[in-house]
Amino acid sequence: MTASLPDLDTLTFKELVAQMVVVRTCGYLFDSQIPYPEWEANTATMQHLVELGIGGVIFLGGSAAELALRSQQMQSWAKIPLLIAADIEEGVGQRFPGGTWFAPPMAISQIARTNPQAEEYAAAMGAITAAEALAIGINWILAPVVDVNNNPDNPVINVRAFGETPAAVSPLANAFIKGAKAYPVLTAAKHFPGHGDTTTDSHVDLPVITHSPSRLAKIELAPFTSAIASGVDAVMSAHLLIECWDAKYPATLSAPILTGQLRDRLGFTGLIVTDALMMDAISKRYGANESPVLAVEAGADILLMPSDPEGAIDAVCEAVKNGRILPQRIRESVERIWQAKRQVEGVKIDPHKIALKLSQPESLQVVERILQQSQIVSGKLPLSPTPNGRNLIVVDNLLGSGKFLTEQSPAITVPKSLGYTTVLCDRHTPFAPKKETDNLPTLMQLFIRGNPFRGSSDLTQIGMNWFKKLSSSHNLQALVIYGSPYILEQLTPAMDSEIPCIFSYGQMPQAQTVALHVLFNV
Amino acid sequence: MTASLPDLDTLTFKELVAQMVVVRTCGYLFDSQIPYPEWEANTATMQHLVELGIGGVIFLGGSAAELALRSQQMQSWAKIPLLIAADIEEGVGQRFPGGTWFAPPMAISQIARTNPQAEEYAAAMGAITAAEALAIGINWILAPVVDVNNNPDNPVINVRAFGETPAAVSPLANAFIKGAKAYPVLTAAKHFPGHGDTTTDSHVDLPVITHSPSRLAKIELAPFTSAIASGVDAVMSAHLLIECWDAKYPATLSAPILTGQLRDRLGFTGLIVTDALMMDAISKRYGANESPVLAVEAGADILLMPSDPEGAIDAVCEAVKNGRILPQRIRESVERIWQAKRQVEGVKIDPHKIALKLSQPESLQVVERILQQSQIVSGKLPLSPTPNGRNLIVVDNLLGSGKFLTEQSPAITVPKSLGYTTVLCDRHTPFAPKKETDNLPTLMQLFIRGNPFRGSSDLTQIGMNWFKKLSSSHNLQALVIYGSPYILEQLTPAMDSEIPCIFSYGQMPQAQTVALHVLFNV
Repeated sequence: MTASLPDLDTLTFKELVAQMVVVRTCGYLFDSQIPYPEWEANTATMQHLVELGIGGVIFLGGSAAELALRSQQMQSWAKIPLLIAADIEEGVGQRFPGGTWFAPPMAISQIARTNPQAEEYAAAMGAITAAEALAIGINWILAPVVDVNNNPDNPVINVRAFGETPAAVSPLANAFIKGAKAYPVLTAAKHFPGHGDTTTDSHVDLPVITHSPSRLAKIELAPFTSAIASGVDAVMSAHLLIECWDAKYPATLSAPILTGQLRDRLGFTGLIVTDALMMDAISKRYGANESPVLAVEAGADILLMPSDPEGAIDAVCEAVKNGRILPQRIRESVERIWQAKRQVEGVKIDPHKIALKLSQPESLQVVERILQQSQIVSGKLPLSPTPNGRNLIVVDNLLGSGKFLTEQSPAITVPKSLGYTTVLCDRHTPFAPKKETDNLPTLMQLFIRGNPFRGSSDLTQIGMNWFKKLSSSHNLQALVIYGSPYILEQLTPAMDSEIPCIFSYGQMPQAQTVALHVLFNV
Repeated sequence: MTASLPDLDTLTFKELVAQMVVVRTCGYLFDSQIPYPEWEANTATMQHLVELGIGGVIFLGGSAAELALRSQQMQSWAKIPLLIAADIEEGVGQRFPGGTWFAPPMAISQIARTNPQAEEYAAAMGAITAAEALAIGINWILAPVVDVNNNPDNPVINVRAFGETPAAVSPLANAFIKGAKAYPVLTAAKHFPGHGDTTTDSHVDLPVITHSPSRLAKIELAPFTSAIASGVDAVMSAHLLIECWDAKYPATLSAPILTGQLRDRLGFTGLIVTDALMMDAISKRYGANESPVLAVEAGADILLMPSDPEGAIDAVCEAVKNGRILPQRIRESVERIWQAKRQVEGVKIDPHKIALKLSQPESLQVVERILQQSQIVSGKLPLSPTPNGRNLIVVDNLLGSGKFLTEQSPAITVPKSLGYTTVLCDRHTPFAPKKETDNLPTLMQLFIRGNPFRGSSDLTQIGMNWFKKLSSSHNLQALVIYGSPYILEQLTPAMDSEIPCIFSYGQMPQAQTVALHVLFNV
C-alpha cells in the first residue's frame, strides 16, 4: 500500500529535513544476507529510518525479483512515498540480476562514430531501463553519466561515459534522458561539474581539477547544460575540488558551485543531489555530520548516503536552529522534492507480472545489436579451435566475478565444448606458469574495466605477465578483452597483427556469446 | 490465488496421469537467468505444463525471496494445487539464499555420540526447515536422507546421512520428521532401499548392491521402517541395482522392490516417489519415455523429473490403453497424491512477511550450536597470527563456490584482518608454488565434501600436493577442513599433532566464523 503525498505544511520541521535524506540499503530481504553490514542498515534500522520519514532509499545488491519485494516493503513502511534510487547506468541488469544488462555507455559512443542510429540505441537504453526500473519499484535512475571521459587513465568514469568529447556525450545522454522520460521515472545527470578528467578515484581520495572556468565551460559543463535542456530531473554533484571556483570545498559542499554555477548560472530548477556522502573524500575530511550541513548550505536538495542518517538530520536541524541555515533553504529543497515525487506518484507494481516486463526478447536484441556494432575485431578470423588448447581467463577478482563468470558462462562453456582446458587467474592466484604447459596454444580472455592497466593493481601485473609470456613463446592464439578499450589500445601495438583479437565493451554472458561467435564462427 | 482440490472423478484420464508427474524448474523469475536451459524449461513451457495439469514442480536455484514469487506464480497457473518440492536436506538456505542453512546431517550424528540433545537439534532442524519452506511456498521437503553411510568412499551420500549405523540414523531422522510434521508440509525418506554402501554415484552410473536380503534388512531397511513408523509422507527410490531382489531393474523401476518390499512387506501407504528420472542411470539405460512407464508398473506414485514430461504422460496413457498398466494402478496413485495434497491445502503465503520468517536469530543460534558441538579440534590453540602469513584456500571449483566463498566470507576476511594474504586454488588453477613464497607460513583452508579424497578429482591432486608441500617444508601453520570428516581422517595421521587442526561439517560463512573463532580466538 503506497501512501500519497501530504501537504508540506502538515510536516514538522524535522520531517522536512528527513525528506532530504536518502539512505543506502541492500535489495536482499533477510538480514543474514547483508553483504556490507558496516554500511548497510539491517531491516529493523531501515524500518525505523523509513518510519522516521527519510525521503528515499538507494538500493545496492539483490536480484531484480528481490528488489520488487524489497521496494514494496520499504514503501509499505513509509507515510510519505519514497524515492527509490539505484545506480543503474547500464540497465537494471547491471545491478540486479534478471533485468536487461546493457554494455557501458561508451559502447554506444563507439557506434556513434560511424552510425547515427547510435542515438536510437541510447534512447532505447533509457526507455528499457526506465520500464524495468518501474516494474520493480525503482523510481529514480541515477543516470546518465554525462562526464566527458577525456582522460584514458580515469579510474572511475572510464567506459561509464557516453564519450570522450562533449559533442559525443551530449546527444547520447540527451537521447537516454528522453527515452527514460517517456516513463514516470526520475533521472540524474552526473557528476557535476564533470568527473572525466581526473586520474584519482573519489571513492579513495579527493581529486583536484585545476582547469580554468573557460575550459570547464567548453568541455565539462556542455553536457550538463544540454541534459538540463533535455529535462533531466536531477544533477548529482562530484566529490572534486574545482580550484578556480572554490579552493576550499569540493563541489558537493560548495555554494559557489552548486548554487552559484548550477542553480544560478545554468538555471537548473530540479533536484541537486550529492554523490554518496559516506565516501572518505567527504566524510573523513569534513566530518560525518558536518558534511551534510555543508551540503545543504551549498545548495543540495538531497543528501545521498550520509554515514549516519539520523545524525545528519539532527545536525541539519541544529544548523537551522542556530541560524546557520535559513528555514527557507530547507523549504525550497522539500518543495523541489515534492515536485519530483509528484511525477512518480501512483505507480503500482505487481510482483507477479514482472516476469513479463524484464529482459524481454526485444530488449535483449537491442543489447545484442549494441554489442555487435561496438565490438572491435582484428586479425585472421575465424580461429580454428586447437584440440587441447588452453582457455586462460584473467579477471580482477574471482571472488567477485559471479555476475559475469560462472561454470555456465559462454567464456567457459564455448571453448570447453571445443576441447579447451579452463585456467583461471586473478589477483589471488600467483603468476606461475609451469614448464610442462609452456607450449599450450592459448586463448586469453581478459575481463578488465575501470582499472588503468598501467596502474599498480595486481591484475595489471598478472595479466601483463601472461600476455608477455604468451606473446614471446608464440602461444597467444587469440586475445579477447571484455571491458576497457584503453587496454586494447595498450596491448595491440605489441601483437602480431594476424593474431585474432576481439574487444567487447560488455562483460556479461551475452557479450561473451557475441565475441566468441565471431572468434570461432560458432 | 490457489485453487482447491477437485473431486478425482472430474479429471480426465490424462489429467490423472499428469498429476503423477513432478517437473524440474528453477527459482529465477526470468528466462534470461535459467542456468541449465537444457534441463530447465522456460516460463512459457512451464506455464504450458502446469496448465496441462502436472502434479507438481521441484525447484533448484534462485533465492528464498525469488522462490516466494516463483512458487506463487506456478500455483496461480494451476487448476489443481501443486506439490512444490525441494531438496532442502540441510535447510532452506542450503539451496535458496536467505533461508537458514544447517550443517549436513552427519554433524548432528557426531554430536549424538556423546550428547543426547542431538535429537532435539534434529527436531529443530526439521521444524525450522518446514516453517521456512512453507513461508516461501514449498510444501514438500525431499528429506530426510535415511541412508546409512557405512562406506566412507561413498561419493554421493556421505555427510548427507544422519550417521554410519542404523542405530545412529533412525532416531535422528525420526526427530527430523517429527519436527517437520508439526507444520503442514510433506517429507520424504530417501533413497530406498538404501544408498549408503556404494562407491558409485548414480548421477553418473548405475551402482550395484550385492548384499543379501538379511543384511539389507539389518542395515539399510531399518531406518526406512522407522521413518515410516514416524509418519514420513513419502519414500524416494534409489537408482540402484539390488541384485538379491531384482537382477534386471534398479529399485526405481522394480516391482519386486517398490511394490513387493516397500508397499507390501513394509506396509508403506504413503507416496512412492522416484529419484530424478532424467539421471543417466535411468533415462539413458531404459529410455526417456519407457522409464516412466516402468516406474509406474513398479509401483511409483510420483515420477520425478522425467526428461520429457509430456512424453512421459503420453507414454503412461498409452501403456494403460495397451493394457500394460491397469487403470486402477493410476487411480490408486492419484488417490495417494490427493491424500498428500489435502495435508498441505490452504496454506497461503505472504511474500511481504517472509522477511520475518526466515533466518531468525533463534534459528541461527541452533545452527551455531550444532556447528560448535560437532566441530573437531586438535593441536596447540589458539594460533598466534603471523604477520605476512598466507591464507591458502582450496575449493573444488571457484566458478561455483559463491554460496560459501565471496570477498565478504569470514574464511577470507578474518585472516586478512590479521595480515594474511589470500591465495586461491581450485581444479582450474595449476599447482605451481613459487620459490620466493616457499617459506611463507600458511593457513590452509580446505573446502571439500562428497568427493572421496583418494579419487581422481583434481581437487584431490592439488589439495594433496599443497598439503604435502606445506608439511614437508614445515610451513603448514594450521589446517581447517570444511566438509568431509573422511578427509580429516586421512590427513591427520600425517600431521604433526601440535599443528592446529579444525574440522567443521559446515561450509557456510557461519561455519567459517565458528572455526576461525576457535583457531585465532577472535
